[in-house]
Amino acid sequence: MNYIHKDENAVYYECGYSCDNVFFLKLGSEAFFITDPRYTTDAKESVKGAEVIEARDLAAEVRKLLRKNRIKRVLYDPKEFSCQDFEALTKGVATRFVPKRDLSWDRRIIKSEQEIECIKRSVELNAQAFDTFAQFLQKSEGKSERELAYEAKRFLSRKGEFDLSFEPIFAINENAAKPHATPSNKPLQKGDLILFDAGIKYERYCSDRTRTAYYGEEFSFRKEQGFKSTKIQKAYDLVKKAQEAAIEGARSGMMAKEIDALARKIIDDSEFKGTFVHSLGHGVGLDIHEKPFINARNSQIIEDGMVFTIEPGIYVPGEFGIRIEDMVVMRNGRAEVL
Amino acid sequence: MNYIHKDENAVYYECGYSCDNVFFLKLGSEAFFITDPRYTTDAKESVKGAEVIEARDLAAEVRKLLRKNRIKRVLYDPKEFSCQDFEALTKGVATRFVPKRDLSWDRRIIKSEQEIECIKRSVELNAQAFDTFAQFLQKSEGKSERELAYEAKRFLSRKGEFDLSFEPIFAINENAAKPHATPSNKPLQKGDLILFDAGIKYERYCSDRTRTAYYGEEFSFRKEQGFKSTKIQKAYDLVKKAQEAAIEGARSGMMAKEIDALARKIIDDSEFKGTFVHSLGHGVGLDIHEKPFINARNSQIIEDGMVFTIEPGIYVPGEFGIRIEDMVVMRNGRAEVL
Repeated sequence: MNYIHKDENAVYYECGYSCDNVFFLKLGSEAFFITDPRYTTDAKESVKGAEVIEARDLAAEVRKLLRKNRIKRVLYDPKEFSCQDFEALTKGVATRFVPKRDLSWDRRIIKSEQEIECIKRSVELNAQAFDTFAQFLQKSEGKSERELAYEAKRFLSRKGEFDLSFEPIFAINENAAKPHATPSNKPLQKGDLILFDAGIKYERYCSDRTRTAYYGEEFSFRKEQGFKSTKIQKAYDLVKKAQEAAIEGARSGMMAKEIDALARKIIDDSEFKGTFVHSLGHGVGLDIHEKPFINARNSQIIEDGMVFTIEPGIYVPGEFGIRIEDMVVMRNGRAEVL
Repeated sequence: MNYIHKDENAVYYECGYSCDNVFFLKLGSEAFFITDPRYTTDAKESVKGAEVIEARDLAAEVRKLLRKNRIKRVLYDPKEFSCQDFEALTKGVATRFVPKRDLSWDRRIIKSEQEIECIKRSVELNAQAFDTFAQFLQKSEGKSERELAYEAKRFLSRKGEFDLSFEPIFAINENAAKPHATPSNKPLQKGDLILFDAGIKYERYCSDRTRTAYYGEEFSFRKEQGFKSTKIQKAYDLVKKAQEAAIEGARSGMMAKEIDALARKIIDDSEFKGTFVHSLGHGVGLDIHEKPFINARNSQIIEDGMVFTIEPGIYVPGEFGIRIEDMVVMRNGRAEVL
C-alpha cells in the first residue's frame, strides 16, 4: 500500500516524530520523511523506520520519489491536504491520488498496549491536576470565572510541563449550559455549580475529563455531590446513573449507537427528556477527538483496544448544565475506566 | 466580484465576526455568513453587511446559493480549503471555482486607520507586558528556562485577558541561536543572555516584539544593553545598527528586498557575515505573519499603510543568538515605529 500524510499526529503515528512542515510518504515497504532544514537534525535523531530527506520544496521532492519509483496509486485523506498542497503534489506526475477518508484514524482506532499505557498516564496526571485545582478553588471564593479558567491551566500544565489537549472549560451555573460560553467576570460564590472539562497530553497522548460540582464548604471534584437545589440534584443523579449504565453495559461487539442508547434512555425516560443534546462520547488518542464516535447514528462495531469517553449531560438553558466524563478502554469485552 | 472564504481571519475582515465553522460567500453586492446552530445567535448579533444563514450542511447551503443565483465564477484561495471542503463545495454545481492565491492577504495589506489603532494598542499592551515580565525576571535567578517561558505567558495574557499571537520564545545563551529550541531545565544565572520574542492580540490584531538582554544587576528589556563578552556586545551593536538603518532608510515606493538589504548589508559587511539567517520582517495584522514579506527576494512595492516587523539578528550556533524586533507602519513615505 502507498500513502501520504501531512497531519502532525498522522505522521507521528507512522514514525514516532513529527513537525509542522512535513510530507510522510509510504511506498510499499519504504517510507520517507520529507521536511525542511529547520527540522532535519531532530528528525534524523527521532524518526523510526523512514528515511529523512531534507528539501526546500517538499512537494517537488515527493513528485521526484513518485516518478523515480513509477508509483501508480497513492492514498491520501482529503481532510489533511489543502487545495494548494494537492496541486503542488500532483502537478505533472502520472501517479493517481486516491482519496481515502480517515486513513490515519482507521489505522489508529485500536490502541496498542504501549499507547494505552501513555493514555493511562495522561489520564492519571489529568486527574491529579483536577485534585490540586480543587484545593486551589477551596480558597478562591470571589475570583472571577475568567481568572479561574486561566488559573486552571497552571495546574493542568504543571507550569508548562505538559501541553493541554484543548482549551479547558470552567463554567459556573447557567454558563455550564452553554457549550461555547466565554468565561465571564462573575465571581465564584458559595452555592454555585461548577462544570470543569479539561485534559492534558502525555507523550502526545490526550486525556479528557469532566466533573460537575457544588461549591460549598467541603469542595472537591469527586462524583458524590450534594446540591442545595432539588432539581439540580435530580439532574446530577440522572447523569451519574446514565454514565454508570453506559460503562457497565458497554460490550465489545455492540454498535456505537447501542452504547449511546444505554445512557440516553435513562435521561430521556425522565422529566429531563431531550436535554442531553450531544453525543455520548468520542475516541481519544493522539487527537482529542478521533474514532470511534459514540453517538445515536454510528453503527461502528466497538472492539477491544478502543479508547473513548463516556460523557452524558443535562443542560437547562439559563439555569445550569451538568456533565460527567471519564475515559474507558475496551478490554476482555467490557469497558474499563481509565 | 464573487468569492468565498473559510479562514477565520479572512472572514472576520469581511464582516467583523468569525468562528471555526463558517463559509463566507460574497456574490456581487450580497454576502452570506453560513454557519452551524452553535454560532448563529452570536453571528446574528455581530456580523455586519452579510446575511447569517444557519445550516447543518454548510457546503450544501453554498451550492444552493450558487445555483439559485446562477453564479458562473467564484474566486477562492487554495490555501484556505482542504480537498474535502473543495469537493463538497463544487459537487454538482456549474460554477467555476477560480484559484486566487492570497486573496484575503492582498485585500488586507494596506491597513485602515482603525486597524492601525488596534495594532498600536496591541503593541502598547505587549510592550507593557515586557516591562512587567522584566521586573519579575529581576527576582527570578535560578528559575529554569522552561518555567520562565511559561511565566511569561501570565504577563503577556494578563492572566488570560488577552490571547497570544504565538507561543512566545524565551531562550538563554546558546538556545537563543536555535530558531525552534525547546525550553530546557537550565536555570537562569547572572551573566546570561536572554532572548525574548512575544506578542499578544488586541481586538484580534497581533503584535510582535523581540528583545535581547544581558541578565546582570540592573535587568531590563531596553535597547541599551551591556554584555560582558566583547564578541556578544559587538554583535548586539551591529544588530541594533542594522535595525536602525532599516527603520531610518525605509521609504514607501521601495521594494521589500531593498529594505531587507539596508539591514543585511550592515551585518554582511562585518565579521558576522552570513549569520543573519532569516528575512528582515513580515507583515502583521489579523495574522501574525501576512503580507508584505520583507526578504531578500521580494520585489513587492512597499506603500503607506503597510504594517510590518523589522527584526535583524545574528546567530552563532552553540554560543548565542541576538534579535531585535519592532513593528512599523509606513506613513508619509517613512517607517514610523509602533
